[in-house]
Amino acid sequence: MPASAQLDPQWSKRRTEKSRRLALVRHLADGPVLRSDDIVTALEELIAPGDRVALEGNNQKQADFLSGALARVNPAKVNRLHLIMPSVSRPEHLELFERGIARKLDFSYAGAQSLRIAQLLQDGLLEIGAIHTYLELYARLYLDLTPNVVLVAAFKADRQGNLYTGASTEDTPTLVEAAAFRDGIVVAQVNQIVDDPGQLPRVDIPGSWIDFVVQSEQPFFLEPLFTRDPRLIKPVHILMAMMAIRGIYERHQVQSLNHGIGFNTAAIELILPTYGERLGLKGKICKHWTLNPHPTLIPAIESGWVKSVHCFGGELGMEDYVAARPDIFFTGRDGSMRSNRALCQLTGQYAIDLFIGSTLQMDGLGNSSTVTRGRLSGFGGAPNMGHDPRGRRHASPAWLDLIETDDPLARGKKLVVQMVETFQNGSQPTIVETLDAVEVGRASGMPLAPVMIYGDDVTHVLTEEGIAYLYKARSLEQRKAMLAAVAGVTPVGMTHDPAGTADLRREGLIALPEDLGVQRSEATRSLLAAKSLADLVLWSDDLYAPPARFRSW
Amino acid sequence: MPASAQLDPQWSKRRTEKSRRLALVRHLADGPVLRSDDIVTALEELIAPGDRVALEGNNQKQADFLSGALARVNPAKVNRLHLIMPSVSRPEHLELFERGIARKLDFSYAGAQSLRIAQLLQDGLLEIGAIHTYLELYARLYLDLTPNVVLVAAFKADRQGNLYTGASTEDTPTLVEAAAFRDGIVVAQVNQIVDDPGQLPRVDIPGSWIDFVVQSEQPFFLEPLFTRDPRLIKPVHILMAMMAIRGIYERHQVQSLNHGIGFNTAAIELILPTYGERLGLKGKICKHWTLNPHPTLIPAIESGWVKSVHCFGGELGMEDYVAARPDIFFTGRDGSMRSNRALCQLTGQYAIDLFIGSTLQMDGLGNSSTVTRGRLSGFGGAPNMGHDPRGRRHASPAWLDLIETDDPLARGKKLVVQMVETFQNGSQPTIVETLDAVEVGRASGMPLAPVMIYGDDVTHVLTEEGIAYLYKARSLEQRKAMLAAVAGVTPVGMTHDPAGTADLRREGLIALPEDLGVQRSEATRSLLAAKSLADLVLWSDDLYAPPARFRSW
Repeated sequence: MPASAQLDPQWSKRRTEKSRRLALVRHLADGPVLRSDDIVTALEELIAPGDRVALEGNNQKQADFLSGALARVNPAKVNRLHLIMPSVSRPEHLELFERGIARKLDFSYAGAQSLRIAQLLQDGLLEIGAIHTYLELYARLYLDLTPNVVLVAAFKADRQGNLYTGASTEDTPTLVEAAAFRDGIVVAQVNQIVDDPGQLPRVDIPGSWIDFVVQSEQPFFLEPLFTRDPRLIKPVHILMAMMAIRGIYERHQVQSLNHGIGFNTAAIELILPTYGERLGLKGKICKHWTLNPHPTLIPAIESGWVKSVHCFGGELGMEDYVAARPDIFFTGRDGSMRSNRALCQLTGQYAIDLFIGSTLQMDGLGNSSTVTRGRLSGFGGAPNMGHDPRGRRHASPAWLDLIETDDPLARGKKLVVQMVETFQNGSQPTIVETLDAVEVGRASGMPLAPVMIYGDDVTHVLTEEGIAYLYKARSLEQRKAMLAAVAGVTPVGMTHDPAGTADLRREGLIALPEDLGVQRSEATRSLLAAKSLADLVLWSDDLYAPPARFRSW
Repeated sequence: MPASAQLDPQWSKRRTEKSRRLALVRHLADGPVLRSDDIVTALEELIAPGDRVALEGNNQKQADFLSGALARVNPAKVNRLHLIMPSVSRPEHLELFERGIARKLDFSYAGAQSLRIAQLLQDGLLEIGAIHTYLELYARLYLDLTPNVVLVAAFKADRQGNLYTGASTEDTPTLVEAAAFRDGIVVAQVNQIVDDPGQLPRVDIPGSWIDFVVQSEQPFFLEPLFTRDPRLIKPVHILMAMMAIRGIYERHQVQSLNHGIGFNTAAIELILPTYGERLGLKGKICKHWTLNPHPTLIPAIESGWVKSVHCFGGELGMEDYVAARPDIFFTGRDGSMRSNRALCQLTGQYAIDLFIGSTLQMDGLGNSSTVTRGRLSGFGGAPNMGHDPRGRRHASPAWLDLIETDDPLARGKKLVVQMVETFQNGSQPTIVETLDAVEVGRASGMPLAPVMIYGDDVTHVLTEEGIAYLYKARSLEQRKAMLAAVAGVTPVGMTHDPAGTADLRREGLIALPEDLGVQRSEATRSLLAAKSLADLVLWSDDLYAPPARFRSW
């Protein structure tokens, strides 16, 4: 193995440059431990103008001490950075562009900052490489977007740089590997530094992958993104949840699935132990999950519905509950959860029977987007799970059940369900003639309209009116008619000839609640296994500890 | 965090069972170091009847000391195992079934053992769960196929169980994580045990994920699967390579790609520095690769064509060359390569412009399979890369170039190319009316025919006759006609009316060599940048060390 010194300089420019930069900050560090007070100076030496920098803004965990420090570097020294971020979520992420420190952005998701990104783009201060799904963004780190520097967050480190990322592992290993193995520089902020590996609960990332650790002033910020208060679940959510269980989960024998954020799917989780139990479905459906640790899944877990849950990330307040249910969740030898967004997305893409999502807008062909005027919110992970993975070769009952021909070369399909109320807040139609995304894409100069889930990937649309079994459509026209038939009084719904509904029902192309044996009168909050977060705490045997902002009972 | 002792036994059965088993072998080990002589006894205690066992048979690296030991356990103690294996490659893998130690198999690939698997299946000694692509199989480890025990291989370990997997990391971290974080048991065979972490070149997998390490009698077996001797490249391969470069890579501006095993793609690699250079394409195409370290890529690397290569696994003999080119390959702080099949497959699926494959059989619609009568060879990674990933949302010039409409919601496409000679060995047609896979699937009781790449995922078919641009087909009939037009004198080709060829050429639906400016007379071995392995060694500055069996010059 040639040692660094013997390498041909022509083929080891990255390594030489890394060594040069590391040498500049040695005096600010004790081995791999950087002094917190010197972090701004250190970043000014470690990062060069035009560098590609992967900054850990995740769905939940934020490397906020490092992003804050980066926003304070001297733009005369560090500028025109190309930022690569799974999630753009903090105000200082965009200050970087306002100050000229960063110039280009490749990202997956931008929740609260979506409006400001669009504004900066318009003002010419920010240039977008592309908006990705999570897996695509990770993939490019190993192809054409290899980072020069990676800035991440962990709970703890030892003095050799070994990291404990625990329940909030999320994207960290995937970001770190791309730099650690291509002569990039890895800096991790941690809440606490201990002396020896033995004092870490466990090692999630080896110290040989990390160049520097630095203790942050405050523990990193964690967003409880997946906590839904059952008190806000309305009867219409429950009606739709009943239809989902009867008309989709039971009908196709859905054994493995992903649920996202939202009251619709929270309602499904909360009526499994009541409505689902009465239908005799326990042990038959909804056994394996790729899912953040939703508090609303607690009653189903406690009632024995759930066999396994693999998590993208953690959820604030769920730590002790998860640690107390190791037969269900993935946990380490120390007892705490292990999440891993890359592996969980991979599982959600390739191995589950069903993805069920919600959206802000859907057109008459089932194309949907959460992008609305003036907002570039990105994709996150939904499109990655919300499509039929054509590289899949293993079968499952649900997957096979979607075959509609007797061609010996026919293959099954993942169930991709869109579950939407026809109107939001009673006034804004969800099902529209043209997605705002088309105009946003054009106005922002994007090569394509930012469509979240494409209509031709959607197998079922479920509204409060009924279910359209789109995978059965034999033509584009029929597909439109089926969707319009469950689109209520939206503009798209109004195009539907009610006389056609009977035909579509008879042919099994759509189903109304009564076709599924779902009684509208039964769709009341009394079906919810937990009606409040306090109920969830009770179900959890006091192991679930809701964050303060949810503690209003 | 509740400690193990305080956990409700009802929710921690896996952890209790793991503790019970570990206690039974403590006397055979010094901390995590198992005595090699006791390996059979240890496996008998660590593995229970009916367990799911993930056994590391990879494309290249084999946990052969452990699989050999497992084949020697007492079937009265250990039986009916459910094996999960990326690659079934060694005779003892099937002895496990013959002896009743194992019963069920989920796998991805079975090269040399494909005939025997089919035989055992027929004899009722083996039951197949499913045949997967690599990514699917990994995904199921985190869903419904979580292993009780994982048996893997590494180069070195220290006495705390930290592992150095180096250039041959391959599938190991992905297999280990599934057990380490769900109270499964992880045993790693290693070639060498050192005392301290400091004596390891680097840590690839932390000791907190590993229960036992055991020194193997012999270094683990590594298969040089991706070494192709340039002497065996024929003029027809060179002709096809010229067409690929002009008619596909140049035309669509293919900047990132995967090449698999085979003389076809080896020929492309070897004429980039000659033919490609003359066309002025350096720096314009073929910059980023997901690829094993093919020796035949050396001349293109040395001539400055290649910006990055991320690898699925290592390649015997390429270790020093790769270590000496860290600007191109992913290497660790110690200088040796890091491969990672899961991440490389992910990149090959989601981030590259083009996948190009070969096959043993293709039907008139472009469906292809390497399964032929009596052989269950599995899929490996090809279908995972050989399809259009519908969850992709970022654009690239090649991807956008395949859009054929002006629909604002149109999306681009990955290029999926099948490159085949119309006949194998001059007599067996490659392009056939019906795939053998259809009959094999039926005879084996598989729910679906084992199709490798589906025709509707293929965008281009390239034969020695020409290129069919299938993504331009406006109907199934036209697609068939295009493929038949380049199918030569195979049964499928004979169905083609030669009079139609001119129309297809004029419309740009197919292209013959002359349409691409490719001179048949130029397709000689003199275009090869290296004509033998000895030439490759020269190109590599003596850093490439071909395995003994290839050293015949």
